[in-house]
Amino acid sequence: MTPKPSPRVQPEPGLPTRVTVYEVGPRDGLQAETDIIPGSVKAELCRRLYAAGSRDLEVTSFVPPTWIPQLADAAEVVAAVDVPDGARAVALVPNLRGLQRAIDAGVREVAVVVSATESFAKANLNTTRSGAIDRATEVIAAATADGIPVRGYVSMAFGDPWEGQVDTAAVISAATALHGAGARTIALGDTIGVATPGLTTRVVNETLAAGIPLPNVALHLHDTYGQSLANVHAALLLGVAEFDASVGGLGRCPYARGATGNLATEDLVWMLHGLGIETGLDLGALAATTEWLSRIRGIRAPSAVARALAAAGLDTTDTAQEAPTP
Amino acid sequence: MTPKPSPRVQPEPGLPTRVTVYEVGPRDGLQAETDIIPGSVKAELCRRLYAAGSRDLEVTSFVPPTWIPQLADAAEVVAAVDVPDGARAVALVPNLRGLQRAIDAGVREVAVVVSATESFAKANLNTTRSGAIDRATEVIAAATADGIPVRGYVSMAFGDPWEGQVDTAAVISAATALHGAGARTIALGDTIGVATPGLTTRVVNETLAAGIPLPNVALHLHDTYGQSLANVHAALLLGVAEFDASVGGLGRCPYARGATGNLATEDLVWMLHGLGIETGLDLGALAATTEWLSRIRGIRAPSAVARALAAAGLDTTDTAQEAPTP
Repeated sequence: MTPKPSPRVQPEPGLPTRVTVYEVGPRDGLQAETDIIPGSVKAELCRRLYAAGSRDLEVTSFVPPTWIPQLADAAEVVAAVDVPDGARAVALVPNLRGLQRAIDAGVREVAVVVSATESFAKANLNTTRSGAIDRATEVIAAATADGIPVRGYVSMAFGDPWEGQVDTAAVISAATALHGAGARTIALGDTIGVATPGLTTRVVNETLAAGIPLPNVALHLHDTYGQSLANVHAALLLGVAEFDASVGGLGRCPYARGATGNLATEDLVWMLHGLGIETGLDLGALAATTEWLSRIRGIRAPSAVARALAAAGLDTTDTAQEAPTP
Repeated sequence: MTPKPSPRVQPEPGLPTRVTVYEVGPRDGLQAETDIIPGSVKAELCRRLYAAGSRDLEVTSFVPPTWIPQLADAAEVVAAVDVPDGARAVALVPNLRGLQRAIDAGVREVAVVVSATESFAKANLNTTRSGAIDRATEVIAAATADGIPVRGYVSMAFGDPWEGQVDTAAVISAATALHGAGARTIALGDTIGVATPGLTTRVVNETLAAGIPLPNVALHLHDTYGQSLANVHAALLLGVAEFDASVGGLGRCPYARGATGNLATEDLVWMLHGLGIETGLDLGALAATTEWLSRIRGIRAPSAVARALAAAGLDTTDTAQEAPTP
């Protein structure tokens, strides 16, 4: 028996007709791995993601190798990946030194991180909340002077493992600082995956009210508490059209070991295609990529769609794409 | 470090302020288990769920023991459970014979199942689509004559593993047949977990348009493709206020072994509490119940919330309840 495709409907009025799925698997997904993954595997992962239709890919991070040994091969990975025409290959950079290393490696788009909370700034960025904003602002100025677009993350925008509920005003001030400095996209991060749709709606609405245009807003969600797709749905209803995801649900929550990590690309794409929203991605090729990487890593990926397709014996057919539209 | 609670917001206008979480773990969750679970464990599970605040519990099913050996102890389980004042203890019955066995065991509320598709009726109910409706109608007539309320499930209401997309007209005709016969609640079942929010919205809207009142509509969702909470969100926006869930995400998809089963009660409750919606349930007590049952079964429950709380070292504190409302 071959299971049949995801039921599809026409796009609901008011929803975006096309969504950018910003793939963070090679960077955010793999950076938490304790076993060092060879650069050649990372480069092959990027190649497979581009082949699956990804055009918006965060390939690595130029943090000091002493901070995250897993990412010491950043330049090697960048050199090994051919970026298709019209596709992006973004690298995270923590500071001006990282920006220079990225540029030297041939990177032409970067991302920076700030924190909505003091606790995360201290624990993860080794600075204060305003220190992180200053550092990001420096990077944005230097990069844009060099014609390099910058994506800005606001971490802990919905909840913080130390502080609990996060002051939305602190999120908005961090977001507007990045936007004012010239960051192209502001990615609001639910780093610990605690948000529910009401809070998502409120934070997105306040971000828009602060003057950041809708096309410049993205959501970076983790699925730690299983809430990420419900939050995507809430944000779609507001018109948000860019969401971060990680193939197979790669990635972990460093504050809750054993818990689920990033929103899985396959689960997001299943929902978007079911809503009649275009992504340019091939669901079967994504699931096959997850299977390939799961075999190499010797683990089962947490993506529900990847598991269901594998359990049903499907491989590379993007059944969701072939469903009739009633 | 003790992780902090789920961020909460005031209920959004238009959302229900209180939701019925109809717990199906002891019946739908356990019936797919291949190892026979002792009746004493099932009864203890029911007791723990009532103690966690559940007031709407499906405790077992009076199918012939030859069909599902796991449920051969239905009468024993019913006899062993004290139902708190104001709480429900529902038993599924497949036909008049099952209804009589349930009544003899002391059951005072039952549930029946019909199918939106011929394939599922044949494979799972051993009859035709209309044969299942006739059988359910007989049970509803006999039960209501005896003062016993009946809940009606429409299985395969969103997708079918053999037939793919399901004709919504077939869903509506099955639902209206149950409603017309006197079933109190109509639970629309995404038995294989393929639906996305657009289809959920359409099926619920058509059910309401067919004359079934909103308070009589429930959703029975499986999380096979990770979509269930997004679908709950879509249904909440339409005012649906009853959702089925299974503690810990107990249950499997019989058509995709290894895939995720029922929507996990903890994941649903995390979202509802985060939205400021009352459930009467204690999240910590639910997660503790999942931990207890996982230890007995020697498996890890799929609930994201249960995993995250366990990973973070939390136990029985319902932190979501204690969060400040900004």
